[in-house]
Amino acid sequence: MIPRYSRPEMVAIWSPETKFRIWFEIEAYAADAMAELGIVPKEAAKIIWDKGGKATFDIDRIDEIERETKHDVIAFLTHLAEIVGPEARFVHQGMTSSDVLDTCLSVQLVRATDILLADLDALLAALKKRAFEHKDTVTIGRSHGIHAEPTTFGVKLAQAYAEFSRCRERLVNARAEIATCAISGAVGTFANIDPRVEEHVAAKMGLTPEPVSTQVIPRDRHAMYFATLAVIASSIERLSVEVRHLQRTEVLEAEEYFSPGQKGSSAMPHKRNPVLSENLTGLARMVRAYATPALENVALWHERDISHSSVERMIGPDATVTLDFALGRLTGMMEKLVVYPEAMQKNMDRFRGLVHSQRVLLALTQAGVSREDAYRLVQRNAMKVWEQGADFLTELLGDKDVRAALSEEEIRDKFDLGYHTKHVDTIFKRVFGES
Amino acid sequence: MIPRYSRPEMVAIWSPETKFRIWFEIEAYAADAMAELGIVPKEAAKIIWDKGGKATFDIDRIDEIERETKHDVIAFLTHLAEIVGPEARFVHQGMTSSDVLDTCLSVQLVRATDILLADLDALLAALKKRAFEHKDTVTIGRSHGIHAEPTTFGVKLAQAYAEFSRCRERLVNARAEIATCAISGAVGTFANIDPRVEEHVAAKMGLTPEPVSTQVIPRDRHAMYFATLAVIASSIERLSVEVRHLQRTEVLEAEEYFSPGQKGSSAMPHKRNPVLSENLTGLARMVRAYATPALENVALWHERDISHSSVERMIGPDATVTLDFALGRLTGMMEKLVVYPEAMQKNMDRFRGLVHSQRVLLALTQAGVSREDAYRLVQRNAMKVWEQGADFLTELLGDKDVRAALSEEEIRDKFDLGYHTKHVDTIFKRVFGES
Amino acid sequence: MIPRYSRPEMVAIWSPETKFRIWFEIEAYAADAMAELGIVPKEAAKIIWDKGGKATFDIDRIDEIERETKHDVIAFLTHLAEIVGPEARFVHQGMTSSDVLDTCLSVQLVRATDILLADLDALLAALKKRAFEHKDTVTIGRSHGIHAEPTTFGVKLAQAYAEFSRCRERLVNARAEIATCAISGAVGTFANIDPRVEEHVAAKMGLTPEPVSTQVIPRDRHAMYFATLAVIASSIERLSVEVRHLQRTEVLEAEEYFSPGQKGSSAMPHKRNPVLSENLTGLARMVRAYATPALENVALWHERDISHSSVERMIGPDATVTLDFALGRLTGMMEKLVVYPEAMQKNMDRFRGLVHSQRVLLALTQAGVSREDAYRLVQRNAMKVWEQGADFLTELLGDKDVRAALSEEEIRDKFDLGYHTKHVDTIFKRVFGES
Amino acid sequence: MIPRYSRPEMVAIWSPETKFRIWFEIEAYAADAMAELGIVPKEAAKIIWDKGGKATFDIDRIDEIERETKHDVIAFLTHLAEIVGPEARFVHQGMTSSDVLDTCLSVQLVRATDILLADLDALLAALKKRAFEHKDTVTIGRSHGIHAEPTTFGVKLAQAYAEFSRCRERLVNARAEIATCAISGAVGTFANIDPRVEEHVAAKMGLTPEPVSTQVIPRDRHAMYFATLAVIASSIERLSVEVRHLQRTEVLEAEEYFSPGQKGSSAMPHKRNPVLSENLTGLARMVRAYATPALENVALWHERDISHSSVERMIGPDATVTLDFALGRLTGMMEKLVVYPEAMQKNMDRFRGLVHSQRVLLALTQAGVSREDAYRLVQRNAMKVWEQGADFLTELLGDKDVRAALSEEEIRDKFDLGYHTKHVDTIFKRVFGES
Repeated sequence: MIPRYSRPEMVAIWSPETKFRIWFEIEAYAADAMAELGIVPKEAAKIIWDKGGKATFDIDRIDEIERETKHDVIAFLTHLAEIVGPEARFVHQGMTSSDVLDTCLSVQLVRATDILLADLDALLAALKKRAFEHKDTVTIGRSHGIHAEPTTFGVKLAQAYAEFSRCRERLVNARAEIATCAISGAVGTFANIDPRVEEHVAAKMGLTPEPVSTQVIPRDRHAMYFATLAVIASSIERLSVEVRHLQRTEVLEAEEYFSPGQKGSSAMPHKRNPVLSENLTGLARMVRAYATPALENVALWHERDISHSSVERMIGPDATVTLDFALGRLTGMMEKLVVYPEAMQKNMDRFRGLVHSQRVLLALTQAGVSREDAYRLVQRNAMKVWEQGADFLTELLGDKDVRAALSEEEIRDKFDLGYHTKHVDTIFKRVFGES
Repeated sequence: MIPRYSRPEMVAIWSPETKFRIWFEIEAYAADAMAELGIVPKEAAKIIWDKGGKATFDIDRIDEIERETKHDVIAFLTHLAEIVGPEARFVHQGMTSSDVLDTCLSVQLVRATDILLADLDALLAALKKRAFEHKDTVTIGRSHGIHAEPTTFGVKLAQAYAEFSRCRERLVNARAEIATCAISGAVGTFANIDPRVEEHVAAKMGLTPEPVSTQVIPRDRHAMYFATLAVIASSIERLSVEVRHLQRTEVLEAEEYFSPGQKGSSAMPHKRNPVLSENLTGLARMVRAYATPALENVALWHERDISHSSVERMIGPDATVTLDFALGRLTGMMEKLVVYPEAMQKNMDRFRGLVHSQRVLLALTQAGVSREDAYRLVQRNAMKVWEQGADFLTELLGDKDVRAALSEEEIRDKFDLGYHTKHVDTIFKRVFGES
Repeated sequence: MIPRYSRPEMVAIWSPETKFRIWFEIEAYAADAMAELGIVPKEAAKIIWDKGGKATFDIDRIDEIERETKHDVIAFLTHLAEIVGPEARFVHQGMTSSDVLDTCLSVQLVRATDILLADLDALLAALKKRAFEHKDTVTIGRSHGIHAEPTTFGVKLAQAYAEFSRCRERLVNARAEIATCAISGAVGTFANIDPRVEEHVAAKMGLTPEPVSTQVIPRDRHAMYFATLAVIASSIERLSVEVRHLQRTEVLEAEEYFSPGQKGSSAMPHKRNPVLSENLTGLARMVRAYATPALENVALWHERDISHSSVERMIGPDATVTLDFALGRLTGMMEKLVVYPEAMQKNMDRFRGLVHSQRVLLALTQAGVSREDAYRLVQRNAMKVWEQGADFLTELLGDKDVRAALSEEEIRDKFDLGYHTKHVDTIFKRVFGES
Repeated sequence: MIPRYSRPEMVAIWSPETKFRIWFEIEAYAADAMAELGIVPKEAAKIIWDKGGKATFDIDRIDEIERETKHDVIAFLTHLAEIVGPEARFVHQGMTSSDVLDTCLSVQLVRATDILLADLDALLAALKKRAFEHKDTVTIGRSHGIHAEPTTFGVKLAQAYAEFSRCRERLVNARAEIATCAISGAVGTFANIDPRVEEHVAAKMGLTPEPVSTQVIPRDRHAMYFATLAVIASSIERLSVEVRHLQRTEVLEAEEYFSPGQKGSSAMPHKRNPVLSENLTGLARMVRAYATPALENVALWHERDISHSSVERMIGPDATVTLDFALGRLTGMMEKLVVYPEAMQKNMDRFRGLVHSQRVLLALTQAGVSREDAYRLVQRNAMKVWEQGADFLTELLGDKDVRAALSEEEIRDKFDLGYHTKHVDTIFKRVFGES
C-alpha cells in the first residue's frame, strides 16, 4: 500500500484512529454485556461509554506507553484508564488482548470487503453497459494469439462480466469467512468470561461468534480471505492483458482513454501507451503475492503464536487498499475505453475468408468426405491464403476436389458472418438474464 | 505426485485410460444430442456407442499418431475413427478440442473432489471420536509456546474438527466452481454447434453448462479450486505441527502410533519420531505451491492461449493425489494417536499454580484494586514461581498486599481446575451440535 | 515431472537405481576411509566394494523391508547386508541416515545441474547464431506494445543471449551451493565418525565438506538452488512471450517451425499456433512454483526435522526434469524459428515516419526550441499520423512552426534508419566480445 | 513496509527527496558527458549543476504537474526547467524516462544493499561472540524434536554464523546483479545518445553499464535480487524458530531478553513470550512473498512494458525496509539472548543415559554383534528407559546379551559427554577459521 495506489476511504479503515475506535467499542459493548450479567456495575458501563465515546484517543500517548510495555493493547487500556478514570478497572474483565485485536481485524476486513463489493458492483455495471453497447460489434476471436473465428466485442465483455460476477460471489463467501467475533479469553475456554458477552459484542459489531477460538480466531479463515482476493486480482490481470493486446500498434482495436495533456513518453511524442492496464497487471501481482504469507499463517503453534500478526499488519491494508484501487482504476478504464469497430472489421478481413475454414470443413464432412480428407482439403487452400495472400473463397471455388463435394452456392453460403453471431443472444441471456 | 505419496483410486482418475474413456463419452453424448437434433444420423450415434463403448483404446497407437500430428485430440479422433469406421466422421462435428479437453478436466476434478470430500468426512469422523474421548482430558493451553491457562485435549480436537468442517464447506464450493461443461466451439459462439448439445453433455456428465466459454472454460474457476486446496493443506499443516509439538521429548503429551518393527533412526535405537506429521508438513507445502501457477493461468490471451495446459497436466494430478494421500495419512495418524493424559497433567503442574494467575488478577480488581496494581501484584509473585521454582499459592498467601484485598479462602478458591472447563460443553455444542 | 515433459538423461538421475548406487558408493567410500584410519578392517572395505560394486540392488526387496521398518536407509542397509554378508556390519559405522541421504541429494543435484549447464550452453549457441544471422535485420522496437523506435532482430536476440549468460553464471553459483557433503553423524558433531571420513567421501563424490552440518546439510543451500532455477524459468518465459507476440496474426514477424503433418487445430485447418512458446510459458510457471516450498523448508526445527524430505522427493525431480525439458524445447524452437524480415519492415512502415519522432524532437530543441514547445510541435503532427493516417514527413514539412526552426533538408535528414542501428556493433561487442 | 517495522536510514533511501536527488544527478552527469562530447554547451552543464545542485525540489509542485501529464519523469523535468531556466533544454537530451528511472532504482537498491550488508556484519559479529561464549555449553541436539545426541550451544550458533555468512556472500552477488546503469535511449540502441554518456554516468553513480538494455534494465536481475532477499529471510526464520523452541515452557533453555516494564500478556502476568522471534517469523514470510511478483516481472513484453513498475514501487521499499528491520531486530535479540546452561544440562539428563545409545550400538557391532542384533539389543533397553523411566546404564549392565559382548568397563566408558564434544574445535575452525 503506497499513496500512489490508494483511495482514502479504504485507507481510513486501517488508520490508528479507526482501530482504537473499534477497540473501544468492543470493550464498551463487552462492558455492557457484563453489566447486564451483573459482573460489572451498570453505572461503570455507562461511564465507559460516556467518557470514552466522545474522547479522541491520543495516538502519541498510546505509542509512548507501548514503548515501555511493548504491548499495544495494554498501552491502549492504560490510556483509556486515563480518560475513563476509576471505572476503567471494569474494562477488559476476563478478556485477553486477542479478543480485542482479532475482533477488530474482523470488523476492519468486513468494512474493507463492503467497499470491495461496491467496487465490484461498479465494475459490473460498467462492463454490462459496454457489453450491450457492443453486443453486435463483430470482431475476430483469437486463440493462441492467432485469428480463429468471429465473435463480438460484447461477448468478450460478457465473459468479463460473468467472471467478475463469480468474483463477487466468492467475495461474499470470503466476507462470511472473516466476519466472526472471539471474546473467549486466554485460551478460548471462556474461563473468565461468559459466552454471552461474545454473543452481545458479535451482534453489535455485525459479526457472528466464532464457534471455537483458542485465544485467536483460526487463521484458515484469513487464508481463505486473502486467497480469494488473489483470485480476483488474477481476473483483473486477465481483463487488463486483453486491453493491452487490443491496444498494440498492430491490433489497435481499442484504446485506453488518453486525456488532453497526458504524455505517453518523454522521448516519443506520438506514443499512447496502455499504462493503466499495464499498471493493473503489476498491481494484480502484488495482491496475489499477499496470499502466500496468509497461507503460511495458518499453522500457528498450539493455541496461538503471534507470527501472524506482523504479516496481517502489512497485508491487511496492503491487499485491500491495493485491490480497491485496482478495481476503481479498472472500472474507470473500462467505462472510458475507446473502441474501434472499423479496426476490428479491418483486422478480421486481413485473411480474406480464412475465418470460415471450419464451416467449409464441416460442410465437406457432411457431404460425405472423411474427416481426414476434408481437413487436408481445407488446409491446402488455407495455406495458400496464409502464405501467398490468396483469397480463400476463390481458392476453394477453384479446387476440383472441393467442388466434387460442394457446389459453388454451397461454398458461398459458408461465408456469412451472421452465422457466427446467431447465438449471441443465447449467451447474453445466460450471463445477464436478458439480451 | 510420486508413488510414495499416492493412493490408487485417485491416481486412476488421471490415467490415460480414464481420460480417453471420458473423451469418448463426451464425444458420444454430443453425437447423441446431434442425432436428436437431426444434425447427424441416429444410426451413426448408435454405432459410435456400440463400437467405441466396448473398445479398449490403444494408448501407444494414440501416442504414435500424436507424434506426427502434435495434437492430442486429433490423435485420439484418428484412433477412434480406426475403431468406429466411416461413421466416425459424425464425431466431433462443430466441436473444438477444448470442448473435449476442458469438459474432461471438469469431470476429472469433480471425481477427484468427491474422493477428497470422502477423505474429509473420514477425517472429521476420526476427530469427532477422539474429541469426545478426550473431552474432559485437561491439558495446558499454550500461547507463544508458553503455558497459558488450562483447556482440554478435546477442545483442541474440537477446534481441528471445526476447521476441517470449514474446509469441507470450502471444498463443496470449489467443486461447484469447476463442475461446468463447455461445448461451444472455436471461440465459444456456438457457431457450428447447437447450445443444446452442451446442455445434453453437461447433464450426462454431471456438470452444468458454462454460461460463456471462449473455447475454454475460464481459468478463474480453476484458480479458485487450487487456492481452496491450498487452504486445506494449510489446515493439515496446522494439525500436524500441533502433533509434532506434543511429541517433543520435553512435552510428550501425545505420540504418533509406532508400529512393532518400525525403526526411528538408523543410529539411535531409542528414537520415536513424529515422522508422519513432519511428512504432512512437507506435503502441505507442496499442495500450497500449486496454487500460484493456477493463479498465473487465469490471464489467458484473448479467447485462450494454451499456457495453462502444461500447468494443469502437472498440478491436476499433483495437487489432488498429494492432498488425498495427506488427508488419508492425517486421518490414520489422528485415529491412532497415542494420548498421555498423565503427561498433560504433569506438564501443567510444572509451575504450580501459575496457570491460575489471571483468575487471581481478576479477583483483585473485583476486590477494588486498580488493574495496574493488580497486574503488578500478580506479576511479582508469578516471577518468583518462574525464576525460583516457588509455589504460587504459597507466595500469594504470604503477600501482604494481596491478602489486604483477598482472604485465604478467596485465594484458594481461585485454584480450581473445574473453573476452566465449565464451558467445554458450550464449545462442544457449538461445534458438534451436541456435547 | 510427467513423461510428456521429461528427457531420459535427467529422469535417470532420479531413478531408484541411481539413488541406491550413489548410496552404495557413499557407504563404500566411507568404509574405505574408515579402513585407512584403522576403524574397520581393510579386508571388510574391499569385500564391500567387491560384492556391492557389482550387485544389482533389488528395489522390490528394499521396498518390502521398508514396509516393515518404515525407514528407507535401514531397508537399504539390510538389503546390502544380504548381498555383502557378515562384513556388512562395518558399513554405516557411526553414520546417520542423513549422511547418506543428503550427500546423495547433493550428488544428484550436481549431476542435474551439469545437464542444465549443458542445456544453457546449447541455448546460448543457438541464440548467438541467430543473433549474428539477424544482426542487421531491422525491426521496430516496442514499448508498452506500441511502436517505439527501430532496433534489429539481432539486438533482441543479443539481449536474450546476455540474459541467459547471466542465468548460466547464476547456475554455476547455485551448483556450488549444493555441492557439499555431510558425513558428520547424528547431530553433526562427528562424535562417532572421524571428520576425515567426510573429507574422503566428499573428494570421491566431487563435493566439498559442509563446514557445519547438523545431521542435515542446511536447507538455505537448497532454497538458493531452487530460487535460481525459478529465475531461469522466468527468463524462459520472457523469450517465449516474445515469440508468442511475434507470431500473433497481426504481427507475424516470426513463427515457430511448423512441421509437415503437424495440426494446429482440430477445427480450424489454417491455424499455426505458437504452441511451443505457450507450453514453455506454462512450464516456467511450474519451475517457479517449486521455489516457495524450498524456501519454506529452510526453517527446520533444531538440528533437523524431516518436513523437507517429502518436498524434495517431489521438487528435486520435478524442477530439474521440467527445466531441462524446457531448455531443450526452447533451444530447438529458437534454432528453427522462422523469421520474416519483410514483415518486420512492413510493420515498421505502418505509421510512415512516426518512429523518427524523437529525432525531430531533439533537432527542434537543438535548434533552440524549448523542450515543452518541441514536444507539442511533434505531438500535434504525430497525432495526425496516428489518427488520420497522414504521412509524418509531409506533415512536418507543412508545419510552419516546425519549419521556422528546421529546414526541409534538416527534417528529411532525420528520416534515416541507419541512424538507429549505428551502435549495433557496440552492443554486440559488449555481449559477445565480437561483432 | 510500515513504520512499526522500519528504520529511518533505510526508509530515507526510498523518500521522494532522495529519488529526485538521484534523478537530478543522473541528468546532470549525463549533461557533463554530453558537454565533454560537444553535444551540449559546457556552460549549460555547469548551470544545470549550479542551479539544480543546490535546489530543493518541490515535491508538491512535481505532483501537481504529474496530475496533468500523468508522467512522473516529465513532471520532474518540467519542474527542473523552472529551476534551471533556459539551459534546461539541454537536460535529458536523447534520453528516455527509463534511463533515469532504472538507473535510479539501481542506485537505491545498491544503497539499500550496503545497509543490509552492514546489518549482516553486525549479526555475524553477534553470533560469533555468543558462539565462542557458549562453545563448550553442552546441550542436547534434537532431530524431529526428539532428543538425539549431545552437541554444544556454540555449535548451534556456529551453524547460524555459517548460514548467515552464506547469506552475506549471496547478497554480495545480488548487489552486483542490480548495480548496472542504462542510458541507452528509447529501445536501447543508443540512437540518440552516445554510449559514452552511459559509461560516464555509470562510473559516477557507482554502477557498471548494462551490456544490452532495451529501454529498461532486464528484470531477471531484479528477480534474482529479491529471490536472494527471500533466502535470507528464510534463514532469519530458521534462527527465530530455534529461539521460539528454546523458550517453550517445557524446554526453556534460552529466553529473549525481557525488559523491565515489558508486559507479556494483558491477562496472564507471569508470561514471558518469545515475541521478537515470533515477529521475525512473520516478517520473514513477508520478505519471502515479495520474490514471486519480482519473478513474474521478468517476462516484459517486447522491449519493455511497465507492469513491473507498480510492483517495484511497492516491493523495493517493502522488501529492503522490512529485511533491514528484521536483521536489526534479530541481531539485538541474539546479542541479549538469555541462555540457561543449567536448564540445558537438566533437559539432557531427562532420559538418563539414552543419548549414549548410538555409542553402545557401535561398540556392540565392533565387538562382533551383527548390526541388526545390536540394534535390537540397544532398542529393547532404550525402550525401558523411555517407557518405564529406567536408567539406561543400569539396564545395559543387567542385560546378559549385552554383557556377553561388552564388559562393564567397556559399557561405562560409553557414557562420557566429552566424547561428543571432541570435534567442536574442528567445527569452529571450519566456520570461523579459529577455535
